Amino acid sequence: MKFTINRNLFIENLNNVMRAISSRATIPILSGIKLVLSNEELTLTGSDTDISIEIKIPVSEDLTVESTGSIVLPARFFSEIIKKLPGKDFSFEVMESFQTKISSENSEFTINGLDANNFPRLPEIPDEATFNIAGKILREIINETQFAVATQESRLVLSGVHFTFSPNTIKAVATDSHRLSEREIVLENGPQTATDLIIPGKSLQELSRIIGESDPEITVCPGDNQVLFKSNNISFYSRLLDGNYPDTDRLLPTESTTSVEFDLAELSSALDRASLLTHEGRNNVVDLDLDVENQKVKLSGTSAEIGNVEEEVSFKNLEGNNLKISFNPDYLRDALRASVTDAVIMKFTQPLRPFTVTPNKDDIQFVQLITPVRTF
Amino acid sequence: MKFTINRNLFIENLNNVMRAISSRATIPILSGIKLVLSNEELTLTGSDTDISIEIKIPVSEDLTVESTGSIVLPARFFSEIIKKLPGKDFSFEVMESFQTKISSENSEFTINGLDANNFPRLPEIPDEATFNIAGKILREIINETQFAVATQESRLVLSGVHFTFSPNTIKAVATDSHRLSEREIVLENGPQTATDLIIPGKSLQELSRIIGESDPEITVCPGDNQVLFKSNNISFYSRLLDGNYPDTDRLLPTESTTSVEFDLAELSSALDRASLLTHEGRNNVVDLDLDVENQKVKLSGTSAEIGNVEEEVSFKNLEGNNLKISFNPDYLRDALRASVTDAVIMKFTQPLRPFTVTPNKDDIQFVQLITPVRTF
Repeated sequence: MKFTINRNLFIENLNNVMRAISSRATIPILSGIKLVLSNEELTLTGSDTDISIEIKIPVSEDLTVESTGSIVLPARFFSEIIKKLPGKDFSFEVMESFQTKISSENSEFTINGLDANNFPRLPEIPDEATFNIAGKILREIINETQFAVATQESRLVLSGVHFTFSPNTIKAVATDSHRLSEREIVLENGPQTATDLIIPGKSLQELSRIIGESDPEITVCPGDNQVLFKSNNISFYSRLLDGNYPDTDRLLPTESTTSVEFDLAELSSALDRASLLTHEGRNNVVDLDLDVENQKVKLSGTSAEIGNVEEEVSFKNLEGNNLKISFNPDYLRDALRASVTDAVIMKFTQPLRPFTVTPNKDDIQFVQLITPVRTF
Repeated sequence: MKFTINRNLFIENLNNVMRAISSRATIPILSGIKLVLSNEELTLTGSDTDISIEIKIPVSEDLTVESTGSIVLPARFFSEIIKKLPGKDFSFEVMESFQTKISSENSEFTINGLDANNFPRLPEIPDEATFNIAGKILREIINETQFAVATQESRLVLSGVHFTFSPNTIKAVATDSHRLSEREIVLENGPQTATDLIIPGKSLQELSRIIGESDPEITVCPGDNQVLFKSNNISFYSRLLDGNYPDTDRLLPTESTTSVEFDLAELSSALDRASLLTHEGRNNVVDLDLDVENQKVKLSGTSAEIGNVEEEVSFKNLEGNNLKISFNPDYLRDALRASVTDAVIMKFTQPLRPFTVTPNKDDIQFVQLITPVRTF
């Protein structure tokens, strides 16, 4: 195996593969990156068993092949070495006993590699249920739900986002049982067969980063235990979570007795200041006082040690019954961060019943639900 | 105690005082910041017993006093609160039982304070040996030596930089016994009486940060156990290290048998790559092979597990005897980072004798000494 490649082209692709490689790999070979060279392309593969990423770099004037082959190299070092090489190109040659020579200008590294045959194979995924989706939409829906998955894995299924794909909509729900985020987007050309998948939150976070600011067309291939997202030259595999996702639709309240509209920036700053103190107290809880009669909204937080804070929050519209409610400010902060509009509507029923946060625009199907805290 | 102040003006000064306040204060009151208000100025004080910083903000249209007084507030919270307040100004009022109200626009914090009388007093330093120095020169000399102090405090005196001030020069030396850095700068107007001080490396690091990119005139007031650096409205106190600093002059070699001049950037990159591997090995050692006969310089590093690297380093001038020498690349990296010229001269005698790194300009008195490592 021997080739010469443009260093920047290689680094750009290497960075994406590195996202799949854990520094705490349970199987030693998975701390490595697999390189396979054919006469058509160089394939880079990384995996941490939860996710696997495969990238193909086609042969071009920036990649010239002298002989084909394969190798696994320690990913972190290999990556650091390539990034610090002096030249515009580097050459790569696998010698005896998997020793690999990497050279660029006056610098020459010899690295101990491993047999690529011992690297776990990527799953075969049938393309029956395959469909396409815009990268921008997929990324949006991930960023609007993924933060709400459970991080303590007492119920493993809640550590994933529940996607329901149908011919005309894509729905995603995440909940850690204290708060919930549900987003629905109309698809112009969804899958022919309806599918639902529970995809681990961590996998989606990486997928969202790889999609980045660009808007590539993404092919989704749902399999039995794995799902594959393909775009351009990148294949992103994630394992799926097994089990039944709870029926969350019944949790969403259909009526409310108090409702208020806030400017996003205004509410966020007030919340930030209030949580400065509550983060120190034993209970991380803020109190929201909606005084409809006097048209006043007060947000307050207390820490017995440090002191207390009281914010008068300006609002756009406050209707219904007076209400005092207490909740974890971090859940509302996350909900506001995920907001797609500059203002949100919060709707309440009773002090101990979950309340909703929705955009102030009716045509956006996005509901966030937060469970209050009993403070008396 | 009651005043109103421009928030940005306050934050700017607060940030500097915060440098003296440790989050792991041994005396609880030292995790606080002291505020003292007179009719002329607001004084902020922070201390971690090693260093103390006092800043005076004079009364102006940005600071209006309603009543004088003093208080100690928990520094970290107070700082976070002020930074997150909504308005351009904020008002500050000490009420009963040291409770302090901080308000800005619709936001109002009430913080539990402490009696300022319990805050340790700053030392009184006589101004007999006082002299002035340009901030830029002081900062330069700190940055060129401070990194070489001992971080393991087996010999406490080595954790400081040894300054010798005389009417016409300032000399600073730091060593951790593996490497040494000595810088001498000619002063136009040094102290009338010669003084020498051992100042803890950590204090100097903070002082250098406070001096920053600006070039304030600094008044140095050496005391018995403390030294005070004064500039504009900031007073920076550091405790001094007690004891005799070793005579380092005798360590500097006066002759050499091999010498080579390197471009700083060229040598730094080669060293960076070589240490990628040596940082992984059991011994963090690179080998430098100076082949005068064939006019070649080779730098190499090995890690038994990962592999090895060999660099052919270009140079400007190589003279004397052939030499192979091994050393810790981190010491050379630090020495190169502190370099004030674009090229350095390295001078050697024997493989097990310390070698020097100096600027390629004769008029800069700056010597760095590195002890090699025995590898056979």
